Amino acid sequence: MSSLTEGILLTDEYQLTMAQVYFRLGLHEKPALFEYFYRKNPDYGQHQAGYCIFAGLNPLLDWMEEAHFGEPELEVLRSQKTRTGKPLFAPDFLEWLGRSNPFDGLTLRAVSEGRVVHPQVPLVAVEGPLLQAQLLETALLNKLNFETLVATKASRIRDVSDHAIILDMGLRRAASGAGNAATRAALIGGADVSSNVGISYELGVQAAGTHAHSLVQAFIALGMSELEAFRAYAEIYPDNTTLLVDTVDVLESGVPNAITVFEELRRKGHKPIGIRLDSGDLAYLSIRSAQLLDVAGFEDVNIVLSSELDELVIWQIQTQIQQEARRYGLDADRIIRRLVYGIGTRLVTSWGQPALGGVYKVVAVQDEGNWKPAIKVSETAEKVLNPGHKQAWRLYDERGLATADLLTLSEEDPQTKSVLTLRHPSDPAKLRRVRLEGTQLEPLHSQVWQGHRQLQSETLGIWRERRQKDVERLDPGVRRLVNPHTYHVSLSPRLWDLKNQMIERLTGEP
Amino acid sequence: MSSLTEGILLTDEYQLTMAQVYFRLGLHEKPALFEYFYRKNPDYGQHQAGYCIFAGLNPLLDWMEEAHFGEPELEVLRSQKTRTGKPLFAPDFLEWLGRSNPFDGLTLRAVSEGRVVHPQVPLVAVEGPLLQAQLLETALLNKLNFETLVATKASRIRDVSDHAIILDMGLRRAASGAGNAATRAALIGGADVSSNVGISYELGVQAAGTHAHSLVQAFIALGMSELEAFRAYAEIYPDNTTLLVDTVDVLESGVPNAITVFEELRRKGHKPIGIRLDSGDLAYLSIRSAQLLDVAGFEDVNIVLSSELDELVIWQIQTQIQQEARRYGLDADRIIRRLVYGIGTRLVTSWGQPALGGVYKVVAVQDEGNWKPAIKVSETAEKVLNPGHKQAWRLYDERGLATADLLTLSEEDPQTKSVLTLRHPSDPAKLRRVRLEGTQLEPLHSQVWQGHRQLQSETLGIWRERRQKDVERLDPGVRRLVNPHTYHVSLSPRLWDLKNQMIERLTGEP
Repeated sequence: MSSLTEGILLTDEYQLTMAQVYFRLGLHEKPALFEYFYRKNPDYGQHQAGYCIFAGLNPLLDWMEEAHFGEPELEVLRSQKTRTGKPLFAPDFLEWLGRSNPFDGLTLRAVSEGRVVHPQVPLVAVEGPLLQAQLLETALLNKLNFETLVATKASRIRDVSDHAIILDMGLRRAASGAGNAATRAALIGGADVSSNVGISYELGVQAAGTHAHSLVQAFIALGMSELEAFRAYAEIYPDNTTLLVDTVDVLESGVPNAITVFEELRRKGHKPIGIRLDSGDLAYLSIRSAQLLDVAGFEDVNIVLSSELDELVIWQIQTQIQQEARRYGLDADRIIRRLVYGIGTRLVTSWGQPALGGVYKVVAVQDEGNWKPAIKVSETAEKVLNPGHKQAWRLYDERGLATADLLTLSEEDPQTKSVLTLRHPSDPAKLRRVRLEGTQLEPLHSQVWQGHRQLQSETLGIWRERRQKDVERLDPGVRRLVNPHTYHVSLSPRLWDLKNQMIERLTGEP
Repeated sequence: MSSLTEGILLTDEYQLTMAQVYFRLGLHEKPALFEYFYRKNPDYGQHQAGYCIFAGLNPLLDWMEEAHFGEPELEVLRSQKTRTGKPLFAPDFLEWLGRSNPFDGLTLRAVSEGRVVHPQVPLVAVEGPLLQAQLLETALLNKLNFETLVATKASRIRDVSDHAIILDMGLRRAASGAGNAATRAALIGGADVSSNVGISYELGVQAAGTHAHSLVQAFIALGMSELEAFRAYAEIYPDNTTLLVDTVDVLESGVPNAITVFEELRRKGHKPIGIRLDSGDLAYLSIRSAQLLDVAGFEDVNIVLSSELDELVIWQIQTQIQQEARRYGLDADRIIRRLVYGIGTRLVTSWGQPALGGVYKVVAVQDEGNWKPAIKVSETAEKVLNPGHKQAWRLYDERGLATADLLTLSEEDPQTKSVLTLRHPSDPAKLRRVRLEGTQLEPLHSQVWQGHRQLQSETLGIWRERRQKDVERLDPGVRRLVNPHTYHVSLSPRLWDLKNQMIERLTGEP
């Protein structure tokens, strides 16, 4: 893929046609404020997320630094014609584009990457010339929506897996071109390691993996055996031996052969790492494999599970082991503690809900020095925008748990009040009052771009730490895998009034 | 994203650890045969595909030409350590990798891009040194699985849309990095145009689009009106005016304002293009908008629909228009013929089934000049591989309709027989006999790579033509949106016998 298709032209045509409208009318430098937010947490069908993990911000800023209208990009626009065959873009507009730095007038305030986030809360506020802010839309949505979606899924898998190692191995099933973003988001959201070699290196984590069925198949086709395949592998990786045991028959062939090889390793002073199960009833096979490994004295050997895993499947496997292990005289918790989860398709595609649906909306435009709030009135109350220039805050109670996010107008300072009123975004009957005493208020946004990148380079460790700290401060009901509690996102009374005045003005109805 | 993460290291760690095993054992140059195929057509939940459209082949070949182990890639592998801190990869292996051209020993036979394909049929057969063939797996799966999935969805949308224009506008909701592959697959599979600027240009199609709600919102926030926003847009694009009419109120504001502007355009000798509806009851609003446009004499103006469309939603909209139009004194077919479909999220994510699940399996290894078939025996009959060195054929009946795909051993020539026996891949009771007379047999594979790319550069027009021709030769039951007929993919008796002998040998059971 050439840079022509990954740079500033990774955008929707209408951003460019609207840009020309703004340019022609002299509106292109009007200060405007756009917000990126999503409306609903992912609903995977049988299970639902109670929060999201924000990801993709650093890649977006990197893209913004590189994207520009060079001669090749301008040539593309010059080639575009109207229906009657005239040039779609006028020379003066193109010349202006070529002279300008596409995002040098913008200021971005954003939630930090890796943090827990909630619906309706602006995750990025983009302020600056109308044309520049509009032009950022497509790339911003493309980069933030997907990574946030995958990091969220990874966080749920992390949550259900307790301290088990989670291996992302979804590259082959990821959307073409999205494998690296998927791995990045998976590692931020909860995966410990990934099979994806290049991006793991860039993020400072060593890639991991076992071996494929093809190794065993090739040996058998050449007249050798599963045992010989295992032995060859162990000889080359005596300290990293994890063996895939389901090519022939797990309990009759794979595990016994693995044990033979493990015994050989042990005699030579090496410690075998694990076996991998990739098909069949993973709970049953885990128990029976654990039993065979225990008898042979390999109580510490991992059991790596793979095959269409997600948070719900893992939960089901753990439940089944809890119910059945005793029947085999085994301790269920000890089996579960030795499990490692290899997660592919369902993580990198966010199976059940493969798009987040985050949006980027203009909420205010400045005129003669004053911010004029903008709104869009749709059919449903939930889809009406929260207008105006706003701030976002998170409230923590005395236990240190996050209890609500609060949106206020920018000129408000909720920290100066003794009692905060939290209004539901659309239902006038729902409101709550909170005493500021005993409540901690945290501003959620920080400035990450002002004409150029301001956010200093961050590491995977930082994003992971933010995620972990935030998830630990969630109410357990919000973290629940199925039917989670709704976390409150509220409006200040002033913002609520502004929103409803605007709706009334536009629709004539209160 | 650097080339380090998009080149040869866009792979799973285990490909490299297995490669070292093969190298160490001197098996790395053993000729092997791997096949890429998928097991089941996509099932979107309420609706199911009866076929797929094969896509992604040309991008794969492009990637193969570029990917190599340069010094930066080798440095990544040199940095990898075992659990005990020793180098994971030995210097002689890395030196050998650095000297070799990763895919120069391979031959690829493949189905042509854009063609209709079916489960179990090898879409690509990769023959050559075991190490090279294994190393191709991850990238091949990543590039073919996704584009095939999206092209399939686009073909279904094409089918239900008859001759209507289909606009891909999913970039913002595509997985990060996958937007261009998604657009490419959408254009192959059935979309006429895309909003995605850069890749559209590279594929030789002009990008298309309308405008966003933000245009209208910005005007209103600045004290102007929806009408003024429309007028400004139409003044700059008098021959390309499509107006988004749902920012305020479709029937009370958007359509009447659009008509005012269309009348102004008409007076100046321009032809307005369309209106766009992006929310609400699209069927109802289409009828009512058509009614208003007709009265004003704009019978030819398009009605562009967007908002979570897919093939099922489009079908439902058409059905509802068929049922309701008469009530408003309108001709349903005329309304449907003026619709244009803007498809976003559900196309680029293949909503309902976001991964194809195609696999890449070793089916034979050569030893002393003879091909030894390889097999993997899983729990379910459907998952057992079809072993050996094979060919794939398509059978057409006297009407020219495709009736079955047939897999044979490579040394068989089905064209020399008078009656063909078609065996079900796993059910011994199911077989069918077909007279060769009146049957046309088409070989499905052609050679696309031999050490380097052999397939000549292809164009979008070719891929689209192949798709259209193939879809037209499908039985209507196979094209059906919901519960399609199962297209037969059969084995020759000799292949069937080989498969069952191998299962018997491995499991001891017939």
